Amino acid sequence: MFEVYVAARFEAAHRLLGDFGPATRVHGHTYRMEVIVRGRQLGDDGTLYDIGKLNRAVSGLASSLDYRDLNEVPGLAGVNTTAEAVADYCWERLAPPLRGRGLDSLVVRIWESRDAYAAREDTLGR
Amino acid sequence: MFEVYVAARFEAAHRLLGDFGPATRVHGHTYRMEVIVRGRQLGDDGTLYDIGKLNRAVSGLASSLDYRDLNEVPGLAGVNTTAEAVADYCWERLAPPLRGRGLDSLVVRIWESRDAYAAREDTLGR
Amino acid sequence: MFEVYVAARFEAAHRLLGDFGPATRVHGHTYRMEVIVRGRQLGDDGTLYDIGKLNRAVSGLASSLDYRDLNEVPGLAGVNTTAEAVADYCWERLAPPLRGRGLDSLVVRIWESRDAYAAREDTLGR
Repeated sequence: MFEVYVAARFEAAHRLLGDFGPATRVHGHTYRMEVIVRGRQLGDDGTLYDIGKLNRAVSGLASSLDYRDLNEVPGLAGVNTTAEAVADYCWERLAPPLRGRGLDSLVVRIWESRDAYAAREDTLGR
Repeated sequence: MFEVYVAARFEAAHRLLGDFGPATRVHGHTYRMEVIVRGRQLGDDGTLYDIGKLNRAVSGLASSLDYRDLNEVPGLAGVNTTAEAVADYCWERLAPPLRGRGLDSLVVRIWESRDAYAAREDTLGR
Repeated sequence: MFEVYVAARFEAAHRLLGDFGPATRVHGHTYRMEVIVRGRQLGDDGTLYDIGKLNRAVSGLASSLDYRDLNEVPGLAGVNTTAEAVADYCWERLAPPLRGRGLDSLVVRIWESRDAYAAREDTLGR
């Protein structure tokens, strides 16, 4: 089994709804998004998936969230913007172009700080 | 599958027994404890498990080990205080309140330095 | 399930062949090699595998690649020196002495930068 990992950052504001104490106030994080694809076989070029290409997809997604209020991002406006929900949102947007490429699974981790992240991992369907 | 991760630090002394060279002398580490819970489903509030709540549990455990000699901590006094044993000790203390909450598994990693850790990962029983 | 992790660094040059843009020019990285062994049972000495011993094996392998042109390293000379290929090369060299020691699997991650790695993970055969 092989993995390829890339990471990107974005600065965003958000606030939680519900019983989350100070996190219900508008605040922000320097988010770090970590993305891993997994698969069984390297191609003839020696890659599982071109790191540069994966990096462009991940950086593009991070840019679309940079200096935004996550509570106002379409696709996140209706949900509680927990790190889990942001990971889910990013997973759904990164997965489609990765399907049918011989990859097994995709992991998206959303770090809110150096000491906390939430992640979604699921199979891609080959 | 979703994950939530938090980390905490503690400063502790220990020494190993057996064929471990300089590590048999009393020394210490700035330990980093990383804790991950895994589960399949987000709750209505958009969380797998409240990061703040997990952080309080992990920070409390780290505090209980801070500025201690691990070889004198009850529950570690009878074992070799390898990073594996410390991970096992922390796993057993963190797991009980996490059971029956829809979580699948718990990982505890104990870093002795930036370049070395040991971890225990096991299912929680839902 | 327990894990033991160690890391080491090496400085090396390489270049890719094929459709990889600027990465086809000779360049270099401060590579970080992360190695994880997994297994089910701790020994009587409280270790899954001696971290110091694993560290010596990993550091020795890293030293053998330090200040080298990866495209000229025997065993890598015939392949595209992607991070996946370097992970595969290192996996094959670390695995043999780890077999038959009660370990289940071995992971080798090769970081080309803080934001990108490739990894190989496979069972060791106990």
